[in-house]
Parts: sequence; C-alpha cells; structure tokens
Amino acid sequence: MIIGRINDMKKQKIVTIGGGTGSFTLLSGLKNYPVEISAIVSMADDGGSTGVLRDELGVLPPGDVRQCLVALSESSAVMRELFNYRYASGGLAGHSFGNIFISTLEKISGNFNEAINEAGQILRISGRVIPVTLTNTKLVAKLENGKIIVGQQKIDEANLANLKQLKLRPRAIANPEAIRAIKQADKIVINPGNFYESILPNFLVSGISRSIKKSRAKKIFVCNLMTKAGHTDNFSVVDYLEVLEIYLGGNVIDYVIYNNKKPSDALIKKYSFEGEHLVRVSKLKLYPKVKFISAKLLANKLPKMQKGDKLKRTLIRHDSEKLAKLIYEIK
Amino acid sequence: MIIGRINDMKKQKIVTIGGGTGSFTLLSGLKNYPVEISAIVSMADDGGSTGVLRDELGVLPPGDVRQCLVALSESSAVMRELFNYRYASGGLAGHSFGNIFISTLEKISGNFNEAINEAGQILRISGRVIPVTLTNTKLVAKLENGKIIVGQQKIDEANLANLKQLKLRPRAIANPEAIRAIKQADKIVINPGNFYESILPNFLVSGISRSIKKSRAKKIFVCNLMTKAGHTDNFSVVDYLEVLEIYLGGNVIDYVIYNNKKPSDALIKKYSFEGEHLVRVSKLKLYPKVKFISAKLLANKLPKMQKGDKLKRTLIRHDSEKLAKLIYEIK
Repeated sequence: MIIGRINDMKKQKIVTIGGGTGSFTLLSGLKNYPVEISAIVSMADDGGSTGVLRDELGVLPPGDVRQCLVALSESSAVMRELFNYRYASGGLAGHSFGNIFISTLEKISGNFNEAINEAGQILRISGRVIPVTLTNTKLVAKLENGKIIVGQQKIDEANLANLKQLKLRPRAIANPEAIRAIKQADKIVINPGNFYESILPNFLVSGISRSIKKSRAKKIFVCNLMTKAGHTDNFSVVDYLEVLEIYLGGNVIDYVIYNNKKPSDALIKKYSFEGEHLVRVSKLKLYPKVKFISAKLLANKLPKMQKGDKLKRTLIRHDSEKLAKLIYEIK
Repeated sequence: MIIGRINDMKKQKIVTIGGGTGSFTLLSGLKNYPVEISAIVSMADDGGSTGVLRDELGVLPPGDVRQCLVALSESSAVMRELFNYRYASGGLAGHSFGNIFISTLEKISGNFNEAINEAGQILRISGRVIPVTLTNTKLVAKLENGKIIVGQQKIDEANLANLKQLKLRPRAIANPEAIRAIKQADKIVINPGNFYESILPNFLVSGISRSIKKSRAKKIFVCNLMTKAGHTDNFSVVDYLEVLEIYLGGNVIDYVIYNNKKPSDALIKKYSFEGEHLVRVSKLKLYPKVKFISAKLLANKLPKMQKGDKLKRTLIRHDSEKLAKLIYEIK
C-alpha cells in the first residue's frame, strides 16, 4: 500500500492543452506512461455535429472533449468505437454518437462537467478531461480591414492573413478545474492542432495564460507538422512559437518539439493542392533560451476514415508513441 | 462464500414476457426481490423512434428492450434518465437517447445481443434482457375481409374486430437464450401491455409457446387494466385469457392476476373518450383450474410525461410494488 502511494506521488502530472484531433494523438500515446493526465480542451468549436448540437440543444461543444475521452479510455474497443461512431445516413447523418451522448447528458444534468464525468466513467478513462471554460462562447476574428468573422467554422474558411484580433464573445472565464490542474502540473504541453481555431482560443480564456506563466511546470510546445492555407501560410517552427508567445504573455515556452522527417512526395503533393505545406525549420537561434527537440515524428499508420465522416481528416499525423516518449523523458 | 452460493441457488428464477411499458412496470417492482430475472421482450415494434431507427439504420427494434434495461438498472438516476431521454426539438426530435444508443451499438458490433449486453453493463442491470427473436420481422394482421395490415404501427391504428390471423413476416425463430431461460424458469409471467402488438407477438415466434407449455414453471398472466379501442373492446379478464390460451396452445396459464380497484371517475371519463374502458370481471368459473388473484393494483403515482414524448403514455397503470409482491409470493 505504502509503495503504491509513493509511486502515485512520483507520477508526473502532465497538463495538455489543445483541441480534438491533435490532443487525441498526443493523449493516446501519453496514457501508456506512469503519468497523471489532465487534458484541457478548447471550447470554441462550432462546426459539424458539434455545431448542430450547440444550435439545436443549446449545449457546450462536445466534439473535442469526446476525442480526448476516447483517447484516454481503457474501455473495450467496442465502446471506443461507439463514441467515435458517425452516422452515414438518415436523420442522424453527420452526427457522432459520442457528441450526442455528451450533449444529452449535459441536457439532463444541466452541467457539462458532470456530463464529462459520467462519460469518463463509462469509458473508464485514465486521467481527466477538463473544458477550458464553461462559458458558452464563440470565437470571433477581427481583420485589419474591419471585417468581423463570427464562429470557428466561418473562421476556418476565412483568410486570416490580415488578422488584427482573435477573441471570445462573450468573454470566457477559466474553468477553476483547469486553473487547479495548471497550478499542480509538472509539465504543461501545448498540443498540435488547428492553431487559430483550437489551440490559441484556449489562451483567450481569462486566467489561463496568466496561470501557465506563473506555473513552475516545464512548458512544452509541440509544433504542427503542416501549415494551414489562409491561416499559417509559410509558417516556420519559430513563427508558430512567436505567435503562441504573444498569446501566452511572452517568454513562457521552455521546450519546442518539432518533426524533422519529410513525408512522401505523394502526400506532400496531395497537401500542396490545398495550399498546405510542411512547416519549415529556420532561425531557431532567435530563441536562445528555448530548447528545440527534433525527431522523426511522422506516424506510419494512417487513421481509418469513417463513412459519414464529413470533416477532413489529416493524413500526415504525429506518431503518438514517439511523441509521448519525448515528452515523458524531458527532465 | 458457500452461504452466498446456496442463497443464489434459492433465488426464484422468473421469466417475464412482454413489450415495453408493461414490462417496465412489472420489472421495476420485481427487481427488488431476491429473484433472478430474465425479461423476454417482443421484437415486433416499428413505431416512433424505434421505427425510424429500423428504417434508417436497418437495426432490430430497440425501444422495448431499452425500457426493460432501464427498469432493471441499478445505475444512477442520471444514467436511467439519460436512457429514457427524448429529444423535443431539432433533428433528433422524437428519438429516445437509449434507442439511439442500442441501435448504434448494434451497428458497430453487428450483433443485437452484444449491444444489449454492453448497454446492460453500463446501466448495471440486475438480471437479463432477452429479445424473443433476432429475426428482423414485421407484425402482419389478416382480417376476415382479406385485408392485410403490415407493421405494428399500422396495426395499432387499425380495427381488429374481424381479425382472422396475426403473424410475423418473415417467420421468426426463437432466440435460443429465450428458450433456455423458459426451460430453467420457476415462474413465467405474461406481462400486461399492448395485447395484440406487444404481448401476443411473442408467441408467434416459432418455439416460444411450445417451450412455455412444456415448462414446469408456474405460468402467471397479469391481465391489462384497460381495454384498447378496436383491439380488445369490451374484453373481460376471461376474454383476455381465452385469446392468450389460443396463442399458447391451451391449458397453459395457472394463475391470473387482475385488478379490482376502480380508477377515479375523471380518469375513466378521460379514457372513455378514446374508447378505452376498465377490463370487466365475469365468468371466471369458465376456467375452474385457473387460480384468479385479484387485488387493488392501481398505481397512485403517475409517470412523468416528458417533453418530446410523442407516444401516448398510459395514466392508469399497475402499482409495480404490489404486483411484484403478488408474483413473488405465489408458492
């Protein structure tokens, strides 16, 4: 018993911050290590099945939370498949079962945290999934020309080259659970993901950036593999870091993990059709205090596409095992 | 340990046979006794949320199974509420969450039994829920005038005064689990419920009636409280029994439990507007070998109506505690 407790106390407390898909990859690997995971999840999503449920049921966005729950699940393959199941036809077409599940629990309990807890128990998750805020809020982008774009889905399709300001409307207050997890963390990992839509919105939530900056945890940024057209065109690793630091308050990140393996020419070509390119590596010396860790981080196995899956799924992904090992081994 | 095992062996093995609502009432009471319950459920339902899911996903009918699962659940109130939750608006309107849950599990596992088992684990049910057949079949009514009515929902609205034959199309084979439960039962209870749509269709499944007749169990019929317009107009307790015995093969039922309490005049009036009346009691002597047990069986508390509940819910119901006690105490 005592040995068990000491081991528990030695477990690294790792907080991850991100959206759905990138967090899924990172958490799937990390959960196999002796760590205590708190996955903080963005609440700005309003597209696809999530958007429909927000509109129709007036709930908080379930999609990214669901992906984190499934990643941390120790449950049977059937249960995990159930939560990620998407309907291909009929009145439920496009919906994810897990989204319906979480949103319905929220309707009944009137409480998003409780819905996540119940779903977490059913999925037998190791660790916790924490919405960054419980404020029902929308992502808003102001461009230099005065144009205002409301909602994550619309922003997804917009060109943000002349972005002036990204904000949440109404103003969102940090979930106290998220603040607590950040305070107690040994490591804080900023996940890869849709940068302007799923990653940065976390730091727009009042109180989050400040508590990260104050935390004694090692702050680790896992850089994206590919740029996104109209959002991060031509971005290098350092460009990502530079923008991130603006949102975090400056001089926050201790480690940056980036990939140094090239995907196949065929895949690069496929992506370039959509204006997406490999993230460049240059000028790392601009950040002499930051430790840059590079490795061959591309996954060999590709995720299965599902019938009814209306969202575009990335074909170039991080290898979750390698990524987890790198993060775990940072001393 | 040994005492525990002996106690287990002493538990009455009770098989109940019925549909959704009537089974729910009976099982909710019965599960509080030291009994081992196998709830055999009709598979003829094709109305409402169940009908839509059958059409759109090509699954077996989940609705009645769901009601039995919830009745036997030892889970939190939130989980039970979740499974019975009906959507009031949007694309999910009219659906029950539990139906979606069971049908999606069936889609993933390709197996209705496994879907029920997984749902049963999540709902922590005491006992088992067994679909009477795994054949995807429809209820068909042939009238004397040659008219054929296909499907439970259409039959629900039809006048069956001149019913010639009720059958399942295609022919349905008994679920081996149902046959096994019947063979091992100490008591077999035919539940109250929608007589021609949810009760009798169980006995149209090839093999069910024969194994009931052969079983050494005490066979108990719980008679409905009210008649149904166009189906069981003017039926007395003995009329129900007479029709039931035709489907069971004759001389099967040992006990008939019926209600002897009158509902309030207001409720009777409300029902009579829809052509539904209290089941009469007369000519019990026509069945001298049958033990008729009467009691005040009306529930005082009425079930809560839910928003989005498109099905008509009965206001005059059995008291599940009293009913369970009567059944349990039959020696």
